[in-house]
Amino acid sequence: MEASGWAKSYNPPNLRRTSVWRAGYPGVQGHATKHDWQRTSMSDIHKRIADSFNAQGLMATVGATLSLVAEGEVHIALPFSKALSQQHGYVHAGAITSIVDTACGYAALTKAPPECDVLTAEFKINLLRPALGEHFLAIGRVLNSGKLLTVCTGEVRAFSGAGSAHKVVALMQATIVNVRR
Amino acid sequence: MEASGWAKSYNPPNLRRTSVWRAGYPGVQGHATKHDWQRTSMSDIHKRIADSFNAQGLMATVGATLSLVAEGEVHIALPFSKALSQQHGYVHAGAITSIVDTACGYAALTKAPPECDVLTAEFKINLLRPALGEHFLAIGRVLNSGKLLTVCTGEVRAFSGAGSAHKVVALMQATIVNVRR
Amino acid sequence: MEASGWAKSYNPPNLRRTSVWRAGYPGVQGHATKHDWQRTSMSDIHKRIADSFNAQGLMATVGATLSLVAEGEVHIALPFSKALSQQHGYVHAGAITSIVDTACGYAALTKAPPECDVLTAEFKINLLRPALGEHFLAIGRVLNSGKLLTVCTGEVRAFSGAGSAHKVVALMQATIVNVRR
Amino acid sequence: MEASGWAKSYNPPNLRRTSVWRAGYPGVQGHATKHDWQRTSMSDIHKRIADSFNAQGLMATVGATLSLVAEGEVHIALPFSKALSQQHGYVHAGAITSIVDTACGYAALTKAPPECDVLTAEFKINLLRPALGEHFLAIGRVLNSGKLLTVCTGEVRAFSGAGSAHKVVALMQATIVNVRR
Repeated sequence: MEASGWAKSYNPPNLRRTSVWRAGYPGVQGHATKHDWQRTSMSDIHKRIADSFNAQGLMATVGATLSLVAEGEVHIALPFSKALSQQHGYVHAGAITSIVDTACGYAALTKAPPECDVLTAEFKINLLRPALGEHFLAIGRVLNSGKLLTVCTGEVRAFSGAGSAHKVVALMQATIVNVRR
Repeated sequence: MEASGWAKSYNPPNLRRTSVWRAGYPGVQGHATKHDWQRTSMSDIHKRIADSFNAQGLMATVGATLSLVAEGEVHIALPFSKALSQQHGYVHAGAITSIVDTACGYAALTKAPPECDVLTAEFKINLLRPALGEHFLAIGRVLNSGKLLTVCTGEVRAFSGAGSAHKVVALMQATIVNVRR
Repeated sequence: MEASGWAKSYNPPNLRRTSVWRAGYPGVQGHATKHDWQRTSMSDIHKRIADSFNAQGLMATVGATLSLVAEGEVHIALPFSKALSQQHGYVHAGAITSIVDTACGYAALTKAPPECDVLTAEFKINLLRPALGEHFLAIGRVLNSGKLLTVCTGEVRAFSGAGSAHKVVALMQATIVNVRR
Repeated sequence: MEASGWAKSYNPPNLRRTSVWRAGYPGVQGHATKHDWQRTSMSDIHKRIADSFNAQGLMATVGATLSLVAEGEVHIALPFSKALSQQHGYVHAGAITSIVDTACGYAALTKAPPECDVLTAEFKINLLRPALGEHFLAIGRVLNSGKLLTVCTGEVRAFSGAGSAHKVVALMQATIVNVRR
């Protein structure tokens, strides 16, 4: 996998690599490896999430891509665009929220019973600093999953250029509900 | 002011009408009336907010328009578009959040000292039901404004068609900070 | 019902009075009136909530009393005590949170199916100003109730003395989940 | 330092030990070591926080003790008591919230400019499971500190007995504001 600069500085934490699907950063397709995961194979889970992601008009509209799907963790990448700006030229909190909400929802889906879909009941987000950068990465992680509710934490990292360190621009805490399909 | 169907069913609550600027719903320009408001005229406040709104790439991208500016209350309208959907075809929580966050921010700005700009520090949003409708209206209202922090409540209403009653699809509680320009 | 000064200034809003149980403010017991309410009489609902309230060690420890039970709205009163202070002598945010969380939970219970109990999944609270006063009143209201989740808004009002106007010191938005008993 | 059972299972994470003040768990006084920390010695910071903690009526009322003060992290311990219960006998969410709000506030204070005091502007808390246990430990950590606002994350761990593993019962995300004394 050949990844351009900004992605090299990104290191996905705490993942059991056998259960990870990872897209190229950007534009290079990764591949899934099989594993036993809640009686559903990783490739099944990844396919389900990728299909769902691709059915989202908003993700295409903002230019977001699904970057990583692992058990309890999903990443979504977003390049900067003027079409996403707020009045000072930074990325609008709404665009930042859109990708990290989506990342948290799919992270919860990786832990949901196979017969369930997920809905975000609510979230809270702190905007830590202006969303200034060339690329953004939203990371959603499951903190606790129950039969009915899943609690996720999310963050959005801003990358200013090739090889640069990131800054965390937003922090989310979300409650997602399992609903029977 | 001639407004098309969905807007007729919308009744802006609790506004002193002399301090209200209101756009047509949709496409018909309203006009501001003068008033004494923090030593800044309503038309000044409205112009400042309209200019800021128009400088937001994201608001144009999602198709939102500024509908009403009053002291402590701002409305933003959003027609349904497939480009804003989540995977089931409803409007994505991120788009809903984008408009109500913006409405709360500008509502706070109407109460901020003239030398200050505002930044959203954080918000929490409950998504009460799927965002299903033809038009959406985000309403941001100041609940309490201090020297430093303003607390707003926001809601998003969904309208299914001409003359229909609305349903509240989202409820927000936001903290906005005054920063010197 | 004879109520001392601070309570006279309190006016419970938007209640259908036939469905309201109200305690004296303070110390004088009110009484419930019968009504048809989710196939459970008001006196049943009130009794269930009063019994539950009285089983809470914390409510007795902080000195809180149940003031009003109505469909979708519950009030809890708390007199000032040094035993509840934070370091500057005001009432601690934790005590303020305790009563408004409880008020929201019981408000949700008035809307829950008879076979269900309720649990607070999460809440967010803004502390608008120091909790300075002689008496406090927490008001929990149901904003939206679904089969599974109920969203409540809560506020805490501070009363400085007999006949005084109140100030809102805290604002809550809470998600409560119905669970089968 | 000799600590009884429940504390042995507790391992404070990610602390530079030279900047840590730690109480015995329970009842054995720890001691501070000097360090250079925002031009204020650790013992100064600890003394300021301990004095403030001891001035809180509510912390004494619920039986909480200050367990650890480090740069950006504060712990507060709470033994189970029936006086803190909700209606099912677990510890009330309000008591859980009280200790983790306090822990977050003091964590923020360790990062505040020396001339500032801190106030909690708002927080959001998810209650992950019933607060069932013999001892509880609230951990507040600074995630981001700016000139004006500090964002903390907090959690509350429940310990069921000597040497037992803990369960996280609550997760908080809080915004704390620096105010000049």
